[in-house]
Amino acid sequence: MSAKHVPYRIHLSEKELPESWYNLRADLPDLSPYLNPKTKEPVALDDMKAIFPVSLLEQELSTERFIEIPEEVRELYRSFRPAPLCRAYNLEKLLDTPARIYYKYEGNNPSGSHKLNSAIPQAYYNHKAGIKRLATETGAGQWGTALAVATQLFGMECTVYMVKVSAMQKPYRKLIMETYGANVFASPSNLTQSGRNILEKDPDYMGSLGLAISEAVEDAATHEDTNYALGSVLNHVVLHQTIIGLEAIKQMEKVDEYPDIVVACCGGGSNFGGLAFPFLHDKIRNGKKTEILAVEPAACPTLTKGRFAFDYGDVAHFTPIMEMYTLGHDFMPPGIHAGGLRYHGASSLVSRAYRDGLIGARSVHQTDVFKAAIQFAKSELILPAPESAHAIRTAIDEALKCKETGESKSILFCLSGHGNFDLTAYEEYLSGNLVDVEYPDELLEKGYETLPVI
Amino acid sequence: MSAKHVPYRIHLSEKELPESWYNLRADLPDLSPYLNPKTKEPVALDDMKAIFPVSLLEQELSTERFIEIPEEVRELYRSFRPAPLCRAYNLEKLLDTPARIYYKYEGNNPSGSHKLNSAIPQAYYNHKAGIKRLATETGAGQWGTALAVATQLFGMECTVYMVKVSAMQKPYRKLIMETYGANVFASPSNLTQSGRNILEKDPDYMGSLGLAISEAVEDAATHEDTNYALGSVLNHVVLHQTIIGLEAIKQMEKVDEYPDIVVACCGGGSNFGGLAFPFLHDKIRNGKKTEILAVEPAACPTLTKGRFAFDYGDVAHFTPIMEMYTLGHDFMPPGIHAGGLRYHGASSLVSRAYRDGLIGARSVHQTDVFKAAIQFAKSELILPAPESAHAIRTAIDEALKCKETGESKSILFCLSGHGNFDLTAYEEYLSGNLVDVEYPDELLEKGYETLPVI
Repeated sequence: MSAKHVPYRIHLSEKELPESWYNLRADLPDLSPYLNPKTKEPVALDDMKAIFPVSLLEQELSTERFIEIPEEVRELYRSFRPAPLCRAYNLEKLLDTPARIYYKYEGNNPSGSHKLNSAIPQAYYNHKAGIKRLATETGAGQWGTALAVATQLFGMECTVYMVKVSAMQKPYRKLIMETYGANVFASPSNLTQSGRNILEKDPDYMGSLGLAISEAVEDAATHEDTNYALGSVLNHVVLHQTIIGLEAIKQMEKVDEYPDIVVACCGGGSNFGGLAFPFLHDKIRNGKKTEILAVEPAACPTLTKGRFAFDYGDVAHFTPIMEMYTLGHDFMPPGIHAGGLRYHGASSLVSRAYRDGLIGARSVHQTDVFKAAIQFAKSELILPAPESAHAIRTAIDEALKCKETGESKSILFCLSGHGNFDLTAYEEYLSGNLVDVEYPDELLEKGYETLPVI
Repeated sequence: MSAKHVPYRIHLSEKELPESWYNLRADLPDLSPYLNPKTKEPVALDDMKAIFPVSLLEQELSTERFIEIPEEVRELYRSFRPAPLCRAYNLEKLLDTPARIYYKYEGNNPSGSHKLNSAIPQAYYNHKAGIKRLATETGAGQWGTALAVATQLFGMECTVYMVKVSAMQKPYRKLIMETYGANVFASPSNLTQSGRNILEKDPDYMGSLGLAISEAVEDAATHEDTNYALGSVLNHVVLHQTIIGLEAIKQMEKVDEYPDIVVACCGGGSNFGGLAFPFLHDKIRNGKKTEILAVEPAACPTLTKGRFAFDYGDVAHFTPIMEMYTLGHDFMPPGIHAGGLRYHGASSLVSRAYRDGLIGARSVHQTDVFKAAIQFAKSELILPAPESAHAIRTAIDEALKCKETGESKSILFCLSGHGNFDLTAYEEYLSGNLVDVEYPDELLEKGYETLPVI
């Protein structure tokens, strides 16, 4: 246990802002390559040039362990980073646990979440490459907001395809993206062939991240001045997010701590990888024994029930085929309230680390998640995003285990965003109308049948 | 100009959290007493015991210069304070100004604003006095949220009378108060005689802070276990808020700065007094030349067009009569989007400082305010509350003056809260539907006619 007094919030100075991102690929050297969705041959950098700038593709394929953050990006980071590491004294008191609970808070920026960490470098590299507009998808709205903010910093346009069910659950999300100058369309939309195809079959389709991705990729591929930006899954996105974990390591060092358990919610994997990968680096290279846990909804159990296989990243087969845990790319996700965790797959890097036993995974039910969220809000005074509350749920579960065993473990989780735009979900929970949805086993089999034959 | 490098955010450690609040009354010794609304004689402490605990009444009437913050309150402050002081480098760049712009950011807590600074001590003192429930009013919703959060920390109940027009403009505000366990009613309500009286005359009345206060005071006065809590105006409320300015002075010292201009928005005066009074103390006692500016909406020009007179604090004449700038206590405020700045009067302390020429005042139009808000959001990456944006408007105006004159003034303003719950207002502005409302001169005369004869 730490001898030092630990303050409620542990800050880093600007000078301590990390200078490089950490690339887990360097420590997972035999990762399978992406495959071209048509030829099923390994993807070449040239195959993806239509929708990504070369600089980001180089990051995507790089095996360098540390990749320098451009000074222009660091300068923009400085208006909201380093982000605070908080000691959850009040939550500990509420739980009456001997565990020491820490959380890295990423909600103090207008996207309300960690997503801005990648939106800024993505806008930066695209701007440098002469791109005028970025097209993207958004589920919960956090990524869309982040990209809206980041593009306007470089005078670029932004088009967001927002999963229809999220657009309906979160009217304020659309408004904030528009306030930052983005054009927002509910997906499926009439603007793309991918959207029109789905609407023809089912005009009431509530959308999925996989489809919104298809729409955004199609938009980018069919417009010369437009590129595509993804908020999670891809290596370069998770790379940018590692600034979370790199800061957290420095902050914990300041109070003579190192976490026994690291927890983050996991959808595509950007928030999870962002916090966890620098600790995974310590585990792989420096022999640390940290338990690292990815938490996902029982309604979208990609890691815990999905299959490790090659699959498309989207419904329309535009993206490369990636080896990952997947429920099948045309997975129809239930309209649960953690829109950011409703993707059919997970980042290749996260998937590989899980398959190799380097990390663990848990799935949790949404009513349990909201219960944890309310406990957190009432003690730590921040209303968490439903996505982040998945991590809170597991952190609390681990802290309660400590209470039983008497162990004083150090638990670190990522509070990836605030829940100010998720109040209708809280209302549903508090009024007793929120139900738990488990992913049905018969759909699993159906999903596997859609996997490409490699 | 400062020789030191100034970081984007200037933090204080927990140990630097102020130990006392500053009481401006000590430096304005000949302030007029409050008067009993019935007898019009100076109010005795006993007159107010029905709705306030003695500890807060003692603070209300105290002439001590510094009043110690109880350790229990400081401990609760620590989960969100000290609040950061930010250097607005990106806004300066956007404006191309030689001015150095700083802002104290008070939005990083669940009330989304500075209001929690007073809600916590008010809940604390009432809890210590054995009170089980607090009744209050809220306009913009920030104060109601803060009191909802603070009361649950002490296991107390909370009843909020929310100005009807705000409840309609801000559905998420009601939800967040309920999430923290409060009971929220649109005012006028059927729960009080004050509310029923108004509804009989005009069932469509959109509410006012003055009426919501009457309802909450009546609720408290008619229930033994219930007290009343006010979010602004009163001396003890502004006292609690001075932690903002006290921290800001320490933070500016750290970078060898002292502001030439201090700006805050002003409704009842808690945010303005909170930032400004410690600087006013320096001005009165230490001869500092700081220009201190209160900014109010042109639609509710209490200081700039109101009369310095004795007036009631509420519609139903329940509160003490106070000497203040007022538009008349039955002022019918236009439904502008800065609900927190729609009170008919201003704190006695603010009013007296203004009448004595110690501070200045500006009134601004809401379209100009939202224009400034967008400039701020797009450069500093925080979406401001419409109330706070009044201060931004004036800070920008002053920075643009510096651009003309070439002066490099140091400007400090209070970013009292975020605008995450004000997105419908932003939508209205961005779609061109927001109109400016000026307070009509004929209403001024009518308002003055309602002043009590002392």
